[in-house]
Amino acid sequence: MKPYQEMSAAELSALKDELSQNFSMYKKTRRKLNMMRGVPSDEQLALCNEMLTCLSAEDYKAANGTDCRNYGGLDGIPEMKNIFADLLEVTPGEVIVGGNSSLSFMFDNVAVNMSHGVRDCEPWQKQGQVKFLCPSPGYDRHFAICDYFHIDMIPIAMGQDGPDMDTVEKLVSSDPMIKGIWCVPKFSNPTGIVYSDETVRRFAKLKPAAADFRIYWDNAYAIHDLGETQVKIQNILRLCEEAGNPNMPLVFASFSKVSFAGAAVACMAASMSNCEYISRRLIVQTIGPDKLNQLRHVRFFKNAAGVMAHMKKHADILNPRFRLVQDTLNRELGSLGIAKWTEPAGGYFISFDTLEGCAKRIVSLCTEAGVALTPAGATYPYGKDPQDKNIRIAPTCPPIAELSEAMEIFCAAVKLASAEKLLEDK
Amino acid sequence: MKPYQEMSAAELSALKDELSQNFSMYKKTRRKLNMMRGVPSDEQLALCNEMLTCLSAEDYKAANGTDCRNYGGLDGIPEMKNIFADLLEVTPGEVIVGGNSSLSFMFDNVAVNMSHGVRDCEPWQKQGQVKFLCPSPGYDRHFAICDYFHIDMIPIAMGQDGPDMDTVEKLVSSDPMIKGIWCVPKFSNPTGIVYSDETVRRFAKLKPAAADFRIYWDNAYAIHDLGETQVKIQNILRLCEEAGNPNMPLVFASFSKVSFAGAAVACMAASMSNCEYISRRLIVQTIGPDKLNQLRHVRFFKNAAGVMAHMKKHADILNPRFRLVQDTLNRELGSLGIAKWTEPAGGYFISFDTLEGCAKRIVSLCTEAGVALTPAGATYPYGKDPQDKNIRIAPTCPPIAELSEAMEIFCAAVKLASAEKLLEDK
Repeated sequence: MKPYQEMSAAELSALKDELSQNFSMYKKTRRKLNMMRGVPSDEQLALCNEMLTCLSAEDYKAANGTDCRNYGGLDGIPEMKNIFADLLEVTPGEVIVGGNSSLSFMFDNVAVNMSHGVRDCEPWQKQGQVKFLCPSPGYDRHFAICDYFHIDMIPIAMGQDGPDMDTVEKLVSSDPMIKGIWCVPKFSNPTGIVYSDETVRRFAKLKPAAADFRIYWDNAYAIHDLGETQVKIQNILRLCEEAGNPNMPLVFASFSKVSFAGAAVACMAASMSNCEYISRRLIVQTIGPDKLNQLRHVRFFKNAAGVMAHMKKHADILNPRFRLVQDTLNRELGSLGIAKWTEPAGGYFISFDTLEGCAKRIVSLCTEAGVALTPAGATYPYGKDPQDKNIRIAPTCPPIAELSEAMEIFCAAVKLASAEKLLEDK
Repeated sequence: MKPYQEMSAAELSALKDELSQNFSMYKKTRRKLNMMRGVPSDEQLALCNEMLTCLSAEDYKAANGTDCRNYGGLDGIPEMKNIFADLLEVTPGEVIVGGNSSLSFMFDNVAVNMSHGVRDCEPWQKQGQVKFLCPSPGYDRHFAICDYFHIDMIPIAMGQDGPDMDTVEKLVSSDPMIKGIWCVPKFSNPTGIVYSDETVRRFAKLKPAAADFRIYWDNAYAIHDLGETQVKIQNILRLCEEAGNPNMPLVFASFSKVSFAGAAVACMAASMSNCEYISRRLIVQTIGPDKLNQLRHVRFFKNAAGVMAHMKKHADILNPRFRLVQDTLNRELGSLGIAKWTEPAGGYFISFDTLEGCAKRIVSLCTEAGVALTPAGATYPYGKDPQDKNIRIAPTCPPIAELSEAMEIFCAAVKLASAEKLLEDK
């Protein structure tokens, strides 16, 4: 079929009618299919079922003698710190291990900086209207934290190498009310792009106007490669240290998509000085994270190499799903000139760009046909995609047969919405 | 021996020399004994060792079909909510289940009220200098939260029936900047007293000057009875509801001293309207608590009756320890007129009052002899006991032989410090 944009109004009108009639069939047989969030599939979860039984009734002590059943150990047991340190290529002293959710670490960090300030600086909230840079499309939960704390969000364009660093540098060095930036440096959510070495170097060399500017480096997909060889990114902690900005980056990671999303272990990595500072708050805030669950992770994975071997099994399960999405998109939409999408080498998402003004309509059509997608706009600050064109596809959770159906419906919705739009514009 | 206060200066001087010489022996053989914090003993922890293995590789679903390995379930799995609801005599809809630490719930609640306000009220921090009432002696971690948020702490005297309610009522009804009060209503930390029915009724009927006044009801020892029959307290949620103050109380509880202190499940109970309100924040703050650990608790305890049966086993382990402390104190100090102490029917502490001005000296002597105690003053706001007389004894953790030694040294320190003090005052 020829590209839609080359069609005449009459051709488009006929096409639209045909597509609309086809789509009404999907609405009638309304399925319940979900490509909404980056959720592991049953198959993936089953990879760790042994973790449910890997402790024995006599196995509850960490290597340093800590009884994991009892109080203590605010920053994690040594073995778990070691695993995170090895995976993130930092030292164990630069790691604080937490509970089930790295999002909580991020939220808390923003919360404390708002109320108490970064280290010895004035609380953010006392300094005026706080602003964060938000590379977009990005992760809706990052934006939700800003929203919650009434932090102004400034969208930054995302390119193939990461955020538009010219703009980032210009803004960060000139506006002291810019206090943070959200980054998912590897297999970015949702675009799947990987920050280039040059991008990370430019991050490390930022000269912020604000002494209390922080890089929120959410390395959520640090080890979530789909390919055989691991994609490497530059080490933000080391580069910042070299550039004289040792306390600027705050790194977050978790096992949510390594072990169990519902019972994982999260961590934060930062300069030892930052860790020491953050621990002073932790002692007021909590009696500590679940240490037995840390021990469970240690027993199951043994070490970082064990984790990496495990990630290959995840890749084996995820690869056919990502391939199916790419194949379907190529087959159904490849020649029509109405969409572009990413082909990530890892992570959990495919970022899909429609014609301008079509994203909401497509998501809405899919909903009518029983296919749940991330709400259009969710990948932008305030839930507002200025061009209404980005859709996040999350292919990990549905069984492959369901994913196939969902993608078929999705492509049908894209075609219909595009034909409608182009006809409208004629 | 006759009461110290009836002794002449010469008698006291001779006594002091003798006690001092005796005590130097303890200093030489400096042991490592710990009565510092309310920590469960190895024996208690072992009661739950089966919980380490109670899930199987096929057992990960909650009764409603929730896969506890995956995302979801911000407020807890239904079975765990039911158990907390039954234990606290509330409805499951009034319960939010969290992670390992009820302290985190309290901290977060204060944090959000400071930064965002109670429901639709102005944020506390925008209203002026926030004040909390702090029944004292009380729990140092409550005071630490106030301290962290620069909340003024107003000590309230504790009597046999709970806080001095005349003062509480007067202050709460007259000062709109009083936004909260910390309560441990059953087996209060450290006095062990139980709020009388009348006290709880008066709490429920408070007429706060502030619409955003909240009762922080830390029911940490709700089921931690030492005796055969359970001590009952009035239901704060129900009484507040009846009094037209349904949203005033926030109840906190946890399994830290039921299952594993290092891997427990905490909860918050409040009006359904409050729970709904709080959940709106949770969705921004976290991906959710560890649901597998909830399931582990459910499988191990089965239901509230199972929990109560389990608590009897704790009591069997704790009773000899509490008896040993009482016996030692009676034997060594009973006739000397230099101290008073509580004899709680549950909880984790014995509150010990020395002669005025002796607490710090006693704790310091004990430290020199290798017995770690809660720092003197810790049971008061700002760590300042105005009369320097309260010491919290935590007898639960040491093996009974060590506890016996520790108490012997403690009593020797009390005698010496008292003789010194009385001589000084002559």
